[in-house]
Amino acid sequence: MIGASGYTGADLVRLAVRHPDIEIVALTANSHAGKPMEQVYPHLAGFGLPDLVRNEEVDWGGVDAAFCGLPHGTSQDVIATLPEHVKVIDISADFRLRDPQTYAEWYGREHVAQDLLKEAVYGLTEHYRNVIRNARLVACPGCYPTATLLLLLPLVEAGVISTDDLIIDAKSGVSGAGRGLKQNTLFCEAGEGMGPYAVGRHRHAPEIEQELSRAASRDVVVNFTPHLIPMSRGEFITAHAKLADGASAADCEQVLAERYADEPFVRMAPDGILPATQQVRGSNYVVLGVREDRIPGRVILMSTLDNLVKGSSGQALQNFNLMFDLPESTALEQLPLFP
Amino acid sequence: MIGASGYTGADLVRLAVRHPDIEIVALTANSHAGKPMEQVYPHLAGFGLPDLVRNEEVDWGGVDAAFCGLPHGTSQDVIATLPEHVKVIDISADFRLRDPQTYAEWYGREHVAQDLLKEAVYGLTEHYRNVIRNARLVACPGCYPTATLLLLLPLVEAGVISTDDLIIDAKSGVSGAGRGLKQNTLFCEAGEGMGPYAVGRHRHAPEIEQELSRAASRDVVVNFTPHLIPMSRGEFITAHAKLADGASAADCEQVLAERYADEPFVRMAPDGILPATQQVRGSNYVVLGVREDRIPGRVILMSTLDNLVKGSSGQALQNFNLMFDLPESTALEQLPLFP
Amino acid sequence: MIGASGYTGADLVRLAVRHPDIEIVALTANSHAGKPMEQVYPHLAGFGLPDLVRNEEVDWGGVDAAFCGLPHGTSQDVIATLPEHVKVIDISADFRLRDPQTYAEWYGREHVAQDLLKEAVYGLTEHYRNVIRNARLVACPGCYPTATLLLLLPLVEAGVISTDDLIIDAKSGVSGAGRGLKQNTLFCEAGEGMGPYAVGRHRHAPEIEQELSRAASRDVVVNFTPHLIPMSRGEFITAHAKLADGASAADCEQVLAERYADEPFVRMAPDGILPATQQVRGSNYVVLGVREDRIPGRVILMSTLDNLVKGSSGQALQNFNLMFDLPESTALEQLPLFP
Amino acid sequence: MIGASGYTGADLVRLAVRHPDIEIVALTANSHAGKPMEQVYPHLAGFGLPDLVRNEEVDWGGVDAAFCGLPHGTSQDVIATLPEHVKVIDISADFRLRDPQTYAEWYGREHVAQDLLKEAVYGLTEHYRNVIRNARLVACPGCYPTATLLLLLPLVEAGVISTDDLIIDAKSGVSGAGRGLKQNTLFCEAGEGMGPYAVGRHRHAPEIEQELSRAASRDVVVNFTPHLIPMSRGEFITAHAKLADGASAADCEQVLAERYADEPFVRMAPDGILPATQQVRGSNYVVLGVREDRIPGRVILMSTLDNLVKGSSGQALQNFNLMFDLPESTALEQLPLFP
Repeated sequence: MIGASGYTGADLVRLAVRHPDIEIVALTANSHAGKPMEQVYPHLAGFGLPDLVRNEEVDWGGVDAAFCGLPHGTSQDVIATLPEHVKVIDISADFRLRDPQTYAEWYGREHVAQDLLKEAVYGLTEHYRNVIRNARLVACPGCYPTATLLLLLPLVEAGVISTDDLIIDAKSGVSGAGRGLKQNTLFCEAGEGMGPYAVGRHRHAPEIEQELSRAASRDVVVNFTPHLIPMSRGEFITAHAKLADGASAADCEQVLAERYADEPFVRMAPDGILPATQQVRGSNYVVLGVREDRIPGRVILMSTLDNLVKGSSGQALQNFNLMFDLPESTALEQLPLFP
Repeated sequence: MIGASGYTGADLVRLAVRHPDIEIVALTANSHAGKPMEQVYPHLAGFGLPDLVRNEEVDWGGVDAAFCGLPHGTSQDVIATLPEHVKVIDISADFRLRDPQTYAEWYGREHVAQDLLKEAVYGLTEHYRNVIRNARLVACPGCYPTATLLLLLPLVEAGVISTDDLIIDAKSGVSGAGRGLKQNTLFCEAGEGMGPYAVGRHRHAPEIEQELSRAASRDVVVNFTPHLIPMSRGEFITAHAKLADGASAADCEQVLAERYADEPFVRMAPDGILPATQQVRGSNYVVLGVREDRIPGRVILMSTLDNLVKGSSGQALQNFNLMFDLPESTALEQLPLFP
Repeated sequence: MIGASGYTGADLVRLAVRHPDIEIVALTANSHAGKPMEQVYPHLAGFGLPDLVRNEEVDWGGVDAAFCGLPHGTSQDVIATLPEHVKVIDISADFRLRDPQTYAEWYGREHVAQDLLKEAVYGLTEHYRNVIRNARLVACPGCYPTATLLLLLPLVEAGVISTDDLIIDAKSGVSGAGRGLKQNTLFCEAGEGMGPYAVGRHRHAPEIEQELSRAASRDVVVNFTPHLIPMSRGEFITAHAKLADGASAADCEQVLAERYADEPFVRMAPDGILPATQQVRGSNYVVLGVREDRIPGRVILMSTLDNLVKGSSGQALQNFNLMFDLPESTALEQLPLFP
Repeated sequence: MIGASGYTGADLVRLAVRHPDIEIVALTANSHAGKPMEQVYPHLAGFGLPDLVRNEEVDWGGVDAAFCGLPHGTSQDVIATLPEHVKVIDISADFRLRDPQTYAEWYGREHVAQDLLKEAVYGLTEHYRNVIRNARLVACPGCYPTATLLLLLPLVEAGVISTDDLIIDAKSGVSGAGRGLKQNTLFCEAGEGMGPYAVGRHRHAPEIEQELSRAASRDVVVNFTPHLIPMSRGEFITAHAKLADGASAADCEQVLAERYADEPFVRMAPDGILPATQQVRGSNYVVLGVREDRIPGRVILMSTLDNLVKGSSGQALQNFNLMFDLPESTALEQLPLFP
């Protein structure tokens, strides 16, 4: 695990410790190198983890896979140095956008590992399963794109909603902002209140647009409006869409139910119940829902997941399982934690 | 104060105790009659409040005004019994909808005080100030309509946004659900998570539509999608709208800034800062904001207030001040409480 | 599972679904009989659970074990009707106090199953492991007693602290109060604030005293002062004690470290780090800590666990594993969830 | 206001804006100099505040009073430079400890303004009212000492409790840690969990001991054990004490009730109700309570206040009112905010 001192790193460790086929041989974190993991994350004490080391200290000789949870930018630099025999599951943003131009525009720097970028596979498990199986480098989607695309891709593919004027009103818990010290994620700032952030300029927007454009075979531009909610984990998407001519909310519900009928981690909300983040906390599950809009010809679409699990480390582990031909749900079967 | 045992009642008392021209002569709550207020709300101990009594025990002889915080239905029954000389500021839903048909449809019972209904004035202070001044019965708007209409009415009136496909994605703290015992407002159910509720059937939708229709001189139907957020107070509206032909986000901002330039309680968010509920908690202030949408021809409109103050008791007191020709801000000048 | 609609019931189901040797054949909840479990707990949708039935509808023929999460009083009535071949793990309070007199005094009713009471074993796993193995009826301790006794019993047994003037200042998350509708557990009442409750009369006090008295071979009376903290899960004990003559804080630390060296679920906090509920959330782990008091001759002792897991359902499952000769950690090895 | 960018600075501004005899002429914050206050605290937008400047930019010519909310150390340096005609209300820790030796020991640096220290008055309003009236420099107590001493001083003075083995188990909201960026006050770290901190080494301990020693005319050493609670505001003291020979819990209650009978801001909890932080949030009020301990000869004493108001800015303003011969409650009469 490269970059193990962030929340996604810690959550991956939490899951990987109980994976029967994973042996954690190294945890890196340049800023904490030399420390026992339990000094950085006391809840991980007692599980026999290796001490944190610097990225360059890892002996990759007998290592089969690397999970990479570094910040974007650094991530591509480090991944470029890994030996060929190491399969890489990248949780950062560096290999999600296929177009280096788009990357440069949104991330404010040139992509310097464009060969790797060409090889990278977009790790939205339920929609790229077959290519993930054979990939060497999987770029796991951001948390918002995961929640949004699992909800919208089947509907766009089935042609039951329009891709014009798609409104994606998103809500996220605070852990999505990471463990770095920022004023707006202090308890007293983020607690007992909420508001939007990064309106019109959140880096998950181009990722959503990339995949919706591919599905729609045309350029799609979306309204993506994220809000910061006073909870640690959990993400909720409320998408407001126009129905395609002749389509109904019931059609949308049916398309989603059928598309995910055999998926272990994606399900429709129970009858009469709306999705809520409380239904997925701490787990790899995703819950979807559909409701009629009072405005004729429109539909309200909902999706929820735990941003640190299915939105990050859980999906990474799911992809790892695929890449190593293991049962896909291994180490991911924990039920949601409620309350 | 009739119906003083709910959160709005308690918040009105909190403010009214410091109003130099108000003497609280009676607090009613049939379910708690006979108790000192401090046994029902310990934070109100020590302020010399009268004990709670039953609605019918009040001697209205020397009373000038009644605030009414009863549940809808009961409210109209009780208000109908008040002597003519008592001015009424109603915080319930009973006199908000002008059309008794619409009331019956959304509240599941006939309106039995239709004469009063004709006389009632809609208490959105900044938009009905003159009629409020001379009213005997003011129906204070719901919290969501207050936040939504302060944001959208000037834009509709100015013709800078379309009233087609208006998406009102709303977020509210838990106090909006009141102090009644409900499973979904328990700490363990509402805490550390969020989700939508009453999608497509929230009773504040027809109220919003009534006022937008009046402003637009046509029937407006809106998408109103409320979410329950893990915070006690605060409400946030994210409205997604089409711009009128030729109009821009900057036009919207200017319309709002000009419309409210002289208002004591409504303001635009500071430069470069997005509105957030933390900016208004505990106060009667409303903060508005405007941002461009990435989709050309669209705009993102934002509004926030404290649902128990400007969304309920504060606006009620503001209307009271108007009705009795007192300075409008009396007892409402507390600054927001942050953190 | 008898009484499956409470939080402890739901949390037991969460864990038991992934237990390889458990098949859930019936879930009872008289107030919700006939409903699918997912209508009562949406986070448990999709796991093939049986619908809820009434207690008396269960066919106990092929059933080996019953977990009982009923309220006290009802619990003894129902357990008395179970066939002899069913082993019972009781999470209620009915069989925790060995003396029926003490039970009557604290629970306000006579104990009507005193034969069962004689047979019942106190299910504090780490201290009663051998008798639990052979028991038919195990009374799992309350959450506070579990946290307190794991901390204090070894110290009393080793004679390093005095049992005079033991101050047990306890803090609990809101889930300890259950899912029943109570005003003080509403989000708006319990949120953003805290205070003590049941000072001097909490029913976990006699349970703590019973076990400390047994360990000390004298009657021990404790100060037990619980506080309600705005978090869903988690319990924290801060015990303030006099050291025995000649004993030191270091001695206390050593006694605890040695006593639990081989225990899978009880550990000392990492070097230099104080215990905190964040270190155990969602897991069956307990973290202990010791610090010197500034007052000479005294010590500060700390303990934390998740009240719904090790404080209730997790310990119940741990006891089940013992009773059926299964590896004790089965289905309990989830790591703590942080953040 | 010197050092206006911290939470205490912002809360003082919140109150002072509505003080009829205060004109805010300067707000300083070296790290934010040049910014409008609304860019640092958006909730303070619209109240006509001066922009932030550096400490040394203030023209003290026509200024009567300075509130100082700087970090300790810096505070004494800056206060030493103020002209003699400026009365100083210091919210920092620099002038609270009368003994420079004790200061050096706990704050890790020599006190370099010992002349000022001799002149400084301890600003616990209810106990030092007369000397505060005539002081030039008032050192406002820390939040914990305020809550603790208001509770314990009268009992020690009346001789109804022993000063041996005083256990002060304290709980605080997160705002007590200030707005500085620290990992442990991030939302995801402090939220949904709790634990103790600074056990045995919190800098408020010597301040409590100084005042209790003075009252008891002997050296008092206390157990002071603070805990961090997931709420923004509020502080709670649970003190566990031995009764003096012959004294009872009822005696303690009577002593406190009589001592504070005429105080505007200190009151006993209503009959049968325990103090809780929810009873004082956002206000200058303090609520006290007393309960019998189950251990004979002991008593449980409770105190709660809002750490940013009575525990800091509110008490500072109260002292200001005294120093300038204004009605003591001016600008402090806001009722608690609940929920």
